[in-house]
Amino acid sequence: MKKIEDIFPAALDAEAAAKCDGGDITVSGAIHKIRQMTSFAFVILRTGRSLIQGVYSSDNCDFDLSRLQEGSYVRVLGTVKAESRTENGFELIIRQITLLSSPAEQMPVSLSKKYLNVSLDVNLSLRPIVLRHPMQRAIFKLQEGIVSGFRNYMLANDFTEIHSPKIVKAGAEGGANLFKLDYFGQQAYLAQSPQFYKQMMAAVFDRVFEIGCVYRAEKHSTSRHLNEYIGLDFEMAYIDSMYDIMAVETGMLKAVIAELRKNYQHELGLLSVQLPTIDHIPALTFTEVKDILKGMGKASKLYYDLEPEEEEIICEYAKNTFGSEFLFITHYPSAKRPFYAMDDADSPEFALSFDLLFRGLEITTGGQRIHDYNMQVEKMKARGLDPEDFASYLMIHKHGMPPHGGLGIGLERLLMRILNLPNVRQTALFPRDLTRLEP
Amino acid sequence: MKKIEDIFPAALDAEAAAKCDGGDITVSGAIHKIRQMTSFAFVILRTGRSLIQGVYSSDNCDFDLSRLQEGSYVRVLGTVKAESRTENGFELIIRQITLLSSPAEQMPVSLSKKYLNVSLDVNLSLRPIVLRHPMQRAIFKLQEGIVSGFRNYMLANDFTEIHSPKIVKAGAEGGANLFKLDYFGQQAYLAQSPQFYKQMMAAVFDRVFEIGCVYRAEKHSTSRHLNEYIGLDFEMAYIDSMYDIMAVETGMLKAVIAELRKNYQHELGLLSVQLPTIDHIPALTFTEVKDILKGMGKASKLYYDLEPEEEEIICEYAKNTFGSEFLFITHYPSAKRPFYAMDDADSPEFALSFDLLFRGLEITTGGQRIHDYNMQVEKMKARGLDPEDFASYLMIHKHGMPPHGGLGIGLERLLMRILNLPNVRQTALFPRDLTRLEP
Repeated sequence: MKKIEDIFPAALDAEAAAKCDGGDITVSGAIHKIRQMTSFAFVILRTGRSLIQGVYSSDNCDFDLSRLQEGSYVRVLGTVKAESRTENGFELIIRQITLLSSPAEQMPVSLSKKYLNVSLDVNLSLRPIVLRHPMQRAIFKLQEGIVSGFRNYMLANDFTEIHSPKIVKAGAEGGANLFKLDYFGQQAYLAQSPQFYKQMMAAVFDRVFEIGCVYRAEKHSTSRHLNEYIGLDFEMAYIDSMYDIMAVETGMLKAVIAELRKNYQHELGLLSVQLPTIDHIPALTFTEVKDILKGMGKASKLYYDLEPEEEEIICEYAKNTFGSEFLFITHYPSAKRPFYAMDDADSPEFALSFDLLFRGLEITTGGQRIHDYNMQVEKMKARGLDPEDFASYLMIHKHGMPPHGGLGIGLERLLMRILNLPNVRQTALFPRDLTRLEP
Repeated sequence: MKKIEDIFPAALDAEAAAKCDGGDITVSGAIHKIRQMTSFAFVILRTGRSLIQGVYSSDNCDFDLSRLQEGSYVRVLGTVKAESRTENGFELIIRQITLLSSPAEQMPVSLSKKYLNVSLDVNLSLRPIVLRHPMQRAIFKLQEGIVSGFRNYMLANDFTEIHSPKIVKAGAEGGANLFKLDYFGQQAYLAQSPQFYKQMMAAVFDRVFEIGCVYRAEKHSTSRHLNEYIGLDFEMAYIDSMYDIMAVETGMLKAVIAELRKNYQHELGLLSVQLPTIDHIPALTFTEVKDILKGMGKASKLYYDLEPEEEEIICEYAKNTFGSEFLFITHYPSAKRPFYAMDDADSPEFALSFDLLFRGLEITTGGQRIHDYNMQVEKMKARGLDPEDFASYLMIHKHGMPPHGGLGIGLERLLMRILNLPNVRQTALFPRDLTRLEP
């Protein structure tokens, strides 16, 4: 007897089903729905990635169907029959059912409706069970795809994967947005980014990347902020300029989209996703962007940064002008970029630093970093920071650093924009925001 | 002009070098060492994974070599010449040198000595620069290999990668070993394991895995405890018993060792690693282990668990008796296992739970979990826990869970034992222990 894993190693597809037409297989799954017809019943099984249509009739199987309900778990033995009208191109003529477990209570929401149709608040409160809904879980299967695409591209381009600590002595970005904790009597923080560590490691392996948690104790309650999120970070040595970093990001994003297109068609279809096309990503300087916005009468009074609305408008502009849903903005005012950003030698009021906007939202901040010890110490002092407080970080500059730079991407934001979802909480498995600490 | 990345996409090896013998390439690297000979100098470059022997002579290159020191970063143009006595099978006849950056101060330790020869304390304090030493960084290249081997095996076996939150409302393992933090006025903790979340997700995707941070506020200062470490976790539904989990772990460990053997020969050689062979991993019950230890006069007075010394002795026994450096121990006393562990129906004083020991050290804890709601609620009550405190976790049991189980592996411990290193701090990039919060 074959188990379904042996027959359909990845997704269940019509081609694979056709191969075992007429054969018997064993499938384990949840009872997703039972649809009683006159002389038989459709028993829809939910497996890890798909729905399988079982056909039950007491002629073929002596199991008492009234023992099953939505949320029961079963093992089914059945015969594969090609059936082009089902999602996987086959149905299962059920011969045996073994009941594995039964729920104690009915679900408060129905998972078998095509659309879940609950408010975000209810969704997040019932997250542990709501994620079982085919459209909900598809979001996180695609999240896996983005992470795989990112990682495979990094590994194929000689980046080494690292794991840096998240309990730290000092924040990399400064400011008040740090979660504090007591660490055996010492004041500690949750890392705002792997910045210091990835720079340290860029001189160890030349190129490094990390996929890990990032913490921001921001008191914002917006549709695009999470207090804990997954950062896709990389850092690379021997760059000639920040444009090398932007080129790697462009290549990586192409690889991510290709990965989704190749291995996640089922989920893309379920969620009706329009994947962006990426060719060349246009770049404008911050000053150019402000000038364009001024020309449109849309520039805000924020001189050193862009308001969310300005990001949306300039993305619309880029789409119309360059045909791209992605837009790099370079040369941000130095004053608004971190102390480790390298300033433009020709115009030191601007940093060699960039954001990547996608469909109206900033999804990346990156840039070239200072590698010279004296330059870094001077910039710290100019900002009122005490280099003594950063002694272990400055060790790398003091004893030699190659020119280097990198970036960080917010995984949930990238996914949110790929799916065109309105709220970033929808793309975090168990989001953390101002009030939400569970589930 | 080719860059070295184009020619040697992965490690630099003799075969690749032979292919471009006589050709010109560009290499960027750190000055690892300069060895002045009578009429020429060896300039050893350290790139991200290897050392490249450059041969400098003023006849071929007009750069003033006195401008360079250990820790300078350069770009070198040179001609490849086959040379079997070097680590990669070639040397580089240097034609041009571009100085990219210079250190402000000399290193406090020499990276060019074959062995670093500093105390662990010095090593950890100087971590940001000490990791540049070829033998130090090799440890973390192998860490990458373990993670890749684990992940690739999981993905190939239909496990979905997840990312669960690390700021949580309640600890999964209970006890006092939790780091506390203030979360916008709420009491929160750092996750002791992704336990609750991976169980929730096992009913979403059938099989899930996670590679992420785990926090234990243990006040131990031993050679095998870290307060922050990387957990390799998986959880799978539709198991028949815990032996299914042990079978997946065995297959995964074989894949990890195969990955290291295939893609990390350079580092295995540098560190003289003896990879373990894994065929069938033997299993003994906790009671059998205690009986064997008693028979040897080595059993401790700890009735419900094993002392570290007992783990070492039983591993030695397993090696001599079964020829295996790995040993599963099953059926631990229920009292010492967590509340979500399923007890053995035949002998409820024992849990369907196991540890995996490797070369004397516990590297895994796993087992079958309770999936029935009433059984879980009863076990919580019997332990004095209030089910109300676990309402969002119990949602999954209440509305139906398949039989399931899983395990967690400590990445640093596994690596420590593969390398036969004496202290787990050596296999964490930037370890966190009772006193160490930086770098």
